[in-house]
Amino acid sequence: MAQPPRARARRGTHPTIEDDTMRWSLPPSEMPTTWFNVLPRLKEPLPPPLHPATREPIGPDDLAPLFPMGLIAQEVSTDPEIEIPGEVLDVLRLWRPTPLVRATRLERALGTPARIYFKDESVSPAGSHKPNTAVPQAFYNKQEGVRRLTTETGAGQWGSALSFASAFYGLECKVYMVRASYLQKPYRRVLMETWGGSVVPSPVDQPDHPGSLGLAISDAVKDAVTRSDTHYSLGSVLNHVLLHQTVIGQEAQAQLRLAGEDHPDVVIACCGGGSNLGGISLPFVPDERVRLVAAEPSACATLTTGRYEYDFGDTAGMTPLLLMYTLGHDFIPPSIHAGGLRYHGDAPIISALVRSGRMEAVAHPQTATFQAAVQWARTQGTVPAPETGHAIRAVIDEALAARERNREEVILFNYSGHGLLDLSAYDDFLHDRLTS
Amino acid sequence: MAQPPRARARRGTHPTIEDDTMRWSLPPSEMPTTWFNVLPRLKEPLPPPLHPATREPIGPDDLAPLFPMGLIAQEVSTDPEIEIPGEVLDVLRLWRPTPLVRATRLERALGTPARIYFKDESVSPAGSHKPNTAVPQAFYNKQEGVRRLTTETGAGQWGSALSFASAFYGLECKVYMVRASYLQKPYRRVLMETWGGSVVPSPVDQPDHPGSLGLAISDAVKDAVTRSDTHYSLGSVLNHVLLHQTVIGQEAQAQLRLAGEDHPDVVIACCGGGSNLGGISLPFVPDERVRLVAAEPSACATLTTGRYEYDFGDTAGMTPLLLMYTLGHDFIPPSIHAGGLRYHGDAPIISALVRSGRMEAVAHPQTATFQAAVQWARTQGTVPAPETGHAIRAVIDEALAARERNREEVILFNYSGHGLLDLSAYDDFLHDRLTS
Repeated sequence: MAQPPRARARRGTHPTIEDDTMRWSLPPSEMPTTWFNVLPRLKEPLPPPLHPATREPIGPDDLAPLFPMGLIAQEVSTDPEIEIPGEVLDVLRLWRPTPLVRATRLERALGTPARIYFKDESVSPAGSHKPNTAVPQAFYNKQEGVRRLTTETGAGQWGSALSFASAFYGLECKVYMVRASYLQKPYRRVLMETWGGSVVPSPVDQPDHPGSLGLAISDAVKDAVTRSDTHYSLGSVLNHVLLHQTVIGQEAQAQLRLAGEDHPDVVIACCGGGSNLGGISLPFVPDERVRLVAAEPSACATLTTGRYEYDFGDTAGMTPLLLMYTLGHDFIPPSIHAGGLRYHGDAPIISALVRSGRMEAVAHPQTATFQAAVQWARTQGTVPAPETGHAIRAVIDEALAARERNREEVILFNYSGHGLLDLSAYDDFLHDRLTS
Repeated sequence: MAQPPRARARRGTHPTIEDDTMRWSLPPSEMPTTWFNVLPRLKEPLPPPLHPATREPIGPDDLAPLFPMGLIAQEVSTDPEIEIPGEVLDVLRLWRPTPLVRATRLERALGTPARIYFKDESVSPAGSHKPNTAVPQAFYNKQEGVRRLTTETGAGQWGSALSFASAFYGLECKVYMVRASYLQKPYRRVLMETWGGSVVPSPVDQPDHPGSLGLAISDAVKDAVTRSDTHYSLGSVLNHVLLHQTVIGQEAQAQLRLAGEDHPDVVIACCGGGSNLGGISLPFVPDERVRLVAAEPSACATLTTGRYEYDFGDTAGMTPLLLMYTLGHDFIPPSIHAGGLRYHGDAPIISALVRSGRMEAVAHPQTATFQAAVQWARTQGTVPAPETGHAIRAVIDEALAARERNREEVILFNYSGHGLLDLSAYDDFLHDRLTS
């Protein structure tokens, strides 16, 4: 299965002209069986979340109305590795390990000496990395007797993932969808319903309000705390969510070895709450040779322009306070197409890495990210999610800089999702209707 | 990479509970380097196409205004294998070989002793099997100096595939899209435009007409014959198209051996023009132990209710006459959601196999196929194209019959495409708005 990076595959009498497509697949039996916990590897311990009313550090009991103990334990665990339950592995193996692919056609189009590798998380049933945490979250809730989950969704990626995962464990799933998306993206709603999820527009009590992620979180949390059979599920930001995503980076490490690469020089991912970025980059934190880069939108530039302080995760101020880069919990970002990046805060783990200098951050306007996404589609063939376009923008800039310096840099990035349910965004871009 | 079918993968101290996800991936270097030509294996030679005006057998020169000589030669070749050019392999390897997957969760839900395997053609950039022929068609045209391709598209799968392939060989691509689809499926249009294709609604000269595949073929052929730099490209029906699709069945044969299966008992695919069905089934034609089954819609039941006779491929009667099962070239099928199956005829190769009894055909109403598709989504996770739902319906019926007979049948089917751009169809099904 392994192919060394430049010993290109040739078969008998059928040499190909370019012979440059390289993809490293692993069988289901080779997926990681533990999650990588970055908490014990951080230089300073992560400050605890604070109770929204008392502003005192919260304990497990404060979180119990929302989350099962299995997840609460993971939220604070300092074990370096945490075992993935067999029942979770079984579902993840429907699509994992995901392929590692070298983007040789993009390299050639850019004329760069850099070698560009990507993890293709778009191959999951929901089309993104989100099911990596939706599945274990549904599992731990099911295991503790919960019958029903609530959550919020903006662009719809997370709601899709949780609906999918709930179907596999026989849980009801109620999704509060930002109203503007609910009205503009009916396909995402239908996808959730196909898996048996039920979807309502948020905010539920203000039928004329376009909604926001912070408001939808408030709706979902309210629902969960008022019903004893119900828990709440969050698709990003929290430690246990980033933990679950580390299968991405661990697989990439194994696959890069198959590709003959000792280590990447830089790891890049887009950043909204930080889960796909954490997933690919956290396993590389201990290796100081590897630069880590977060790519965020200029319209919601949390890491590059936000304040590092305690803030609420939602708009109504119902969630614990987290120490993070934030634009303020009442910040309503402009309506850019990368809905998954429209969040006022960032994961505390990501924020701490940026604060300490271990991780860099860059911000790009959405037109620049769609230029990159269309260049990708016309060279590599697939249509990326608008969120993923931010990573691709940063990758292209990095590869062009490598050309300037004539340096054989190894770039790894996370292809976090496909854009097949975001094509109206491409329509706007291709017909010059993008506003920023 | 290989895992024997019931020696389930276990790793060290992490046994899984169900441990049942099995997927056989092959590296890009293992994809077939020849196409499988069924023509010399047919019991009787295929009768030739007839000229639309003279009704005499046509020769290569008659086809030259539409197709490059490379494809015309393949259309009539009796070589048992035909080499795939390296430049074609290079592009196909962006996603090929596609995985062979065992649908263990569906098996369990059905309580069947049958083992169900599927080839996942939905992983291509365009989301279906169609690029398998779009890529070589674009290549041979480019090689012979053509600058521009025209084609028709109904649901949009074929137009997407040809736009994608054209981008990789620097060809212009003009797609005549059935007007009803053009208006109802803007995402498909945007996908084609993202790859650089240009899309217009058809029929071009009747702006109030909803259109049909036969009319769109006429538009695309007219365009091609009136411009010297332009050729026409067809996504199904013709011999060379089915030839290009045989990479599917050849890969499946290699992967079934890895899975420890000597041969499938039955091979199933949906059938519109016949290209995905031909792709997976033709390499099995010589093995008489293997049953071959075509699954078609009741609303356009060509193989099960059509006449076996010479008919035009298009509505206007501009194309050569082909000997095939047909509902008449003026037949306008009801507007079912499986747009790719709404064609009045069938591939001559498929028609001959059914006529001779080598292949069976079944027809199902669309509600039954969506029931099957939703059961698939809730057990196997992915959302199939409405066309693929027809194959899944036939697979489930076969697996239930195996349960009745308590027989360990091996079923192979083609998961021809995903349904992410057809979610409005699921919306109609889930909310009881399907008409048939």
